[in-house]
Amino acid sequence: MSAGKLIGVGVGPGDPELITLKAIRALAEADVVAHFAKAGNVSHARTIAAQHLRREIVELPLLYPLTTELPKCSAGYRDALRDFYDEAAAAIAAHLDAGRVVAVICEGDPLFYGSYMHLHTRLAPRFAVEIVAGVTGMSGCWSAAGTPIAQGDDIFTVLPATLPEDELARRFSQTNAAVVMKVGRHLPKVRRALTTSGRLARAVYVERGTMADAKLVPLAAKPDDDAPYFAIVLVPGWEERP
Amino acid sequence: MSAGKLIGVGVGPGDPELITLKAIRALAEADVVAHFAKAGNVSHARTIAAQHLRREIVELPLLYPLTTELPKCSAGYRDALRDFYDEAAAAIAAHLDAGRVVAVICEGDPLFYGSYMHLHTRLAPRFAVEIVAGVTGMSGCWSAAGTPIAQGDDIFTVLPATLPEDELARRFSQTNAAVVMKVGRHLPKVRRALTTSGRLARAVYVERGTMADAKLVPLAAKPDDDAPYFAIVLVPGWEERP
Repeated sequence: MSAGKLIGVGVGPGDPELITLKAIRALAEADVVAHFAKAGNVSHARTIAAQHLRREIVELPLLYPLTTELPKCSAGYRDALRDFYDEAAAAIAAHLDAGRVVAVICEGDPLFYGSYMHLHTRLAPRFAVEIVAGVTGMSGCWSAAGTPIAQGDDIFTVLPATLPEDELARRFSQTNAAVVMKVGRHLPKVRRALTTSGRLARAVYVERGTMADAKLVPLAAKPDDDAPYFAIVLVPGWEERP
Repeated sequence: MSAGKLIGVGVGPGDPELITLKAIRALAEADVVAHFAKAGNVSHARTIAAQHLRREIVELPLLYPLTTELPKCSAGYRDALRDFYDEAAAAIAAHLDAGRVVAVICEGDPLFYGSYMHLHTRLAPRFAVEIVAGVTGMSGCWSAAGTPIAQGDDIFTVLPATLPEDELARRFSQTNAAVVMKVGRHLPKVRRALTTSGRLARAVYVERGTMADAKLVPLAAKPDDDAPYFAIVLVPGWEERP
């Protein structure tokens, strides 16, 4: 019996129509579909891909451990996550050893800021692996906003909102275009850094970018600093349009 | 008679399976499909989307002017391109004024380093516009390479290979992950800047990333500095894996 195959399947940013034909084919081929979710929640990737799952497919939910009592930078938190990924990889390896095709479905693109990467690094050395690229969350957001983001020789930078304010301001002033990820409670700081660097007027705030209830507003016009964890801020480049 | 609708349709990085259901629906809805190409060449986007074009669809090829005799930074070059985009937008506007749905098909994602953006800025103020996000060329490349690119709080930067060597080296040392675009004749300089910044060992050279004849090789193992214009170099982040 030959070993199976692992497929990291990007299902796009949220709109179920932004799934690719290749992802749909991978789901038709798969014996097992694995998906990450917080315990007690439904996997977003599963919701996006739901209509393409075969009725007889085996589902393998991978439920993040509850770590709310642990600080994110603590050794305890890191250990809990590492153990979780080890166990998830072992559960998938058992299917692969039995010759099955396992699709791990991922929001956005599997190798761009996705949990799938933790499984990939553990399993790719031992098993055949295929990656199905997906439309990223940020592409979904600037498309929903209708905002050209970068052009020509623009420098484009993705920044986590966790950076210190002066660091954010410095980087805003040294890039043509930027996307700030995981904005949440950092929005007041991001707003100040954009003001310092003279970029606030171009910035667009995006919440649930490709969902029906998306919220898209020029950041300068947003009256409050409320933002969920996954909100992003777009700073379009291409300032000298021909 | 009501005006038509412009749709910027991302068709993905090259593999025809990396097109989305939304792009296919847009092509089914469109009366006219427009595509950019160099005069004498077939549009790559058209090749990717060929099997989804309705037989009776009106095609509008947008052929870049021949500007090989003009230096790229010259006013003559910029004027020739501006006139070309003005004329292309006018040709599309005529269809929109006649109430037609016009899909402009684009390799990758329409609003991320794409020619479509020149039409968008000219037409979006006057007409209804929809954007169909696509899988970017760079996602296609790191997926083909099986290379996790960025994770967690990584900073990710897209850099044009045209930057000076010291600027490239400085930016490589200040980002976790990078993609260098339009490598071409700049490869020796990119290689030196990666060496200076200590990142050469992780760099991956990619040519025709999602084509059947893709070439993927660690840059340190590439024996020559031959590279076509659209080759890219991936510098994966996520160096401290848990």
